[in-house]
Amino acid sequence: MEKLHPSHQKLMEKAKSITILLSATSILHWDMETKMPPKGIKQRSEQLAMLSKIAHRMITDPEIGSLLKTVERHRDYETLDATQRRNVYLIRKAYDEQTKLPEELVVETARQQAITVDIWKKAKAAKDFPLFKPELEKLLNLRKKAAEILMKVKQTATTYDALIDIYEPKMTAKTITSIFSELREGLVSVIHKCQTAPKQPDTSFLQRKVPIDVQRRISDSLAKFLEYDVESKKAGGRIDETEHPFTTGYYDDVRITTHYYEEKFASSLFSILHEAGHAIYDQNLKAEWIYQPVGESCSLGFHESQSRFVENIVGRSREFWAYYLPKLKKFTGKTFAGVDVDTLVFAINQVKPSKIRIEADEVTYGLHIIIRFEIERDLMADKVTVAELPQVWNQKYEKYLGVDIENDSEGVMQDTHWASGYYGYFPTYALGNIYSGQLLSKMRGDLPDWTDQITKGNFHNVKQWLSKNVHSYGNLYDPADLIKKITGEPINGKHFLNYLNKKYSKLYGF
Amino acid sequence: MEKLHPSHQKLMEKAKSITILLSATSILHWDMETKMPPKGIKQRSEQLAMLSKIAHRMITDPEIGSLLKTVERHRDYETLDATQRRNVYLIRKAYDEQTKLPEELVVETARQQAITVDIWKKAKAAKDFPLFKPELEKLLNLRKKAAEILMKVKQTATTYDALIDIYEPKMTAKTITSIFSELREGLVSVIHKCQTAPKQPDTSFLQRKVPIDVQRRISDSLAKFLEYDVESKKAGGRIDETEHPFTTGYYDDVRITTHYYEEKFASSLFSILHEAGHAIYDQNLKAEWIYQPVGESCSLGFHESQSRFVENIVGRSREFWAYYLPKLKKFTGKTFAGVDVDTLVFAINQVKPSKIRIEADEVTYGLHIIIRFEIERDLMADKVTVAELPQVWNQKYEKYLGVDIENDSEGVMQDTHWASGYYGYFPTYALGNIYSGQLLSKMRGDLPDWTDQITKGNFHNVKQWLSKNVHSYGNLYDPADLIKKITGEPINGKHFLNYLNKKYSKLYGF
Repeated sequence: MEKLHPSHQKLMEKAKSITILLSATSILHWDMETKMPPKGIKQRSEQLAMLSKIAHRMITDPEIGSLLKTVERHRDYETLDATQRRNVYLIRKAYDEQTKLPEELVVETARQQAITVDIWKKAKAAKDFPLFKPELEKLLNLRKKAAEILMKVKQTATTYDALIDIYEPKMTAKTITSIFSELREGLVSVIHKCQTAPKQPDTSFLQRKVPIDVQRRISDSLAKFLEYDVESKKAGGRIDETEHPFTTGYYDDVRITTHYYEEKFASSLFSILHEAGHAIYDQNLKAEWIYQPVGESCSLGFHESQSRFVENIVGRSREFWAYYLPKLKKFTGKTFAGVDVDTLVFAINQVKPSKIRIEADEVTYGLHIIIRFEIERDLMADKVTVAELPQVWNQKYEKYLGVDIENDSEGVMQDTHWASGYYGYFPTYALGNIYSGQLLSKMRGDLPDWTDQITKGNFHNVKQWLSKNVHSYGNLYDPADLIKKITGEPINGKHFLNYLNKKYSKLYGF
Repeated sequence: MEKLHPSHQKLMEKAKSITILLSATSILHWDMETKMPPKGIKQRSEQLAMLSKIAHRMITDPEIGSLLKTVERHRDYETLDATQRRNVYLIRKAYDEQTKLPEELVVETARQQAITVDIWKKAKAAKDFPLFKPELEKLLNLRKKAAEILMKVKQTATTYDALIDIYEPKMTAKTITSIFSELREGLVSVIHKCQTAPKQPDTSFLQRKVPIDVQRRISDSLAKFLEYDVESKKAGGRIDETEHPFTTGYYDDVRITTHYYEEKFASSLFSILHEAGHAIYDQNLKAEWIYQPVGESCSLGFHESQSRFVENIVGRSREFWAYYLPKLKKFTGKTFAGVDVDTLVFAINQVKPSKIRIEADEVTYGLHIIIRFEIERDLMADKVTVAELPQVWNQKYEKYLGVDIENDSEGVMQDTHWASGYYGYFPTYALGNIYSGQLLSKMRGDLPDWTDQITKGNFHNVKQWLSKNVHSYGNLYDPADLIKKITGEPINGKHFLNYLNKKYSKLYGF
């Protein structure tokens, strides 16, 4: 950035400071989930509230406003390249949005969020939705207030769109409704064919005991396969253990977590593949963009496309298991001696409607998301109240997935998102699936022998393809532009549905 | 604090924010030493530099200056209690000192510190002092600049005193010189008697292998004995592993580290006792003082008095081992079957001059500190140059400890303190020993049966005594006032020397 004029330089330095502060905050979040002594929670809430207040003040610093004006009006502006303009655009967007949010609302939301998550944990354990309800209402109202403010700044059609834009820039509920309608139809058709097929998988061996230290070694071997370095003295990542796996970090310090259950080895295995898919995205952003707004991922949908790609398209493929099953057998002694590749691949791809999103298979998963999307869209539009949530939830689960929700802990209280105030977040999970299908179609053309490479234990070229086509673009484009740039077409659910149809017709023989 | 007037209230809120920020920073330091992927170091330096800059700005915020004036001149000031006044005093002190330090100097020092520590590691590994020298000189000059500024603010007699005051408020090199002169004489006498005694310990069994997982269980059992809770779901602490053990944290989140060597089980054992001694100090500060300046420890010397008390006075006593040896034997199977309490206690109290401070015994330890004190006093007074350090160091080690330093890695480059810019820090280690001796004399009067309690495996009453007499005072008094308040007399090395003489004459039979 040597050629930028002083105001522009200063603006970029301010953006850098904010990024550094947020990266420090993410370490405190990681520590809270993985290492913090339980008693430390109160102190940690204070620390996080403090840092978010400082970050909000830094982002809304009036000097950023005047620097932005200077830069945007400066004669040099026309000579800036796309990256520099994008940086200015992203700073402007954050500044305009955040300055409109009153500090009291930001702080009050952070406080209510902590309270609501805490009550959610207790209510979930006690299967007691009425306990959860009043705090959830308060938080929802705060988010609605923010959404009304943001709607005006962002000029979105609805308040819900203003929230979706936080996670998936420029995406709208209208577009999602249309995409999800096609998706739902396609998923229901695949599910029906799988369920009525005479051939059904035997999944019983998936419950065979795999000692946890063996599972840890499996995790390390998967990380190595994916070139997610957690072992060397120059490693840029690490694997820890939490109830709910997650990925966090920035550039050279990106960490994942998993959980280990002796009788569910596949659970940790696929969570490692999933989270490492996220991690290699963050680790492979363009090095020179570090601390710049453009040096971030494109959107949550795109992030999820990477985790799903690695977990499902690669990790649940026959080709991967042709390579990995002998390794698994080496790690586990005689445990899976009689299991062949086809049996295993069929088992780990069983399609079976269920109640819990995070345990759902690749096909039924989308329906869980569609339910959440429809509900939060209606919540934001005041067509559903918090009090009505359990009823609405259970009806939709009966209708879309044919399952009977027996209590709200396995129903509307299963996820933390709403308790955390993350309205507009859920749809990105299904968008991730859809993007991953489009990326697969494109990659097939570029790397026709990619499946052979995976069977040989070589993930490198696939990773290079993802890095070149997705990771290295960082936040240079909005997701709608990025998917078009990569694949030549707008978001299109057909590729994902084609992938599912092809894969599952082969597995189930329909 | 309900009765404080609004400006006072606001002042305390600002102090609270600073404390919270610093507590968050300490977690990032902890993470850097224990968990951070190695590649993350550059990013972490940026994060720490950013947070120290924010902290410096918060502490030097002109509004603090005007709030202080208002509070100090307000008619309510006369009605404030000792705690409230101490808080105001401590905020005033930090504000006056920090506002005088230019931000560039603070930031430049932080940067040079990171560089110097990095070079120190390389130079130490390569036994190459000339590599270390230029960066050490730069850092020393920056610290001298700061010391000159601080000398004026604090009105100390010398620049060195201004730095000592950071770690041991109001202590001076002059006082230390006089205390250390008596200490040195006493230590040399004990060492001489031990070395010339016909009875000498057999220490060979200390090298017997204890598997690391067994050592981890020993650590947990020691933590339990000390009531340093690292195990329950409400724990306020944890134990991790680093090359150099340390303690960090605040109130409900205080963490210690240790290291494990199969053939040196005593090393982890005593480091756990030492660090847990620090930890229970921080955990037992008065709960209502959290986030107030008074809710900190008194000084580094007092902190060290607590770690030394637990490690040496309790942990190396015959009474403790009468209780703990059977436990150790249970943990280690037949490894120490033939070892009796007296043999073990003699071995772990062997007095033997050595080159490395952190491996020194309780008696020779003080001489290592006296050497460092004399050298840094002369460095600050320009009587010794950085170039002369190795020579001066080696001469003093020959003279005071009778050991022959063969290279600078086992000599002047053994510690990180100077590479970190911590001039004035070393003396607090020996002050800690001296305070611990005074505390012991006082406690003997209050708890005449304390040794019996320890033999019964009960540390509770000793801990309560330390908490009541030391921990609960937090930072209400300067160390000179606190030691007088607790023991009725000023700092006095005789108690520590008496304790050593009594203990070692019994062990060595002189």
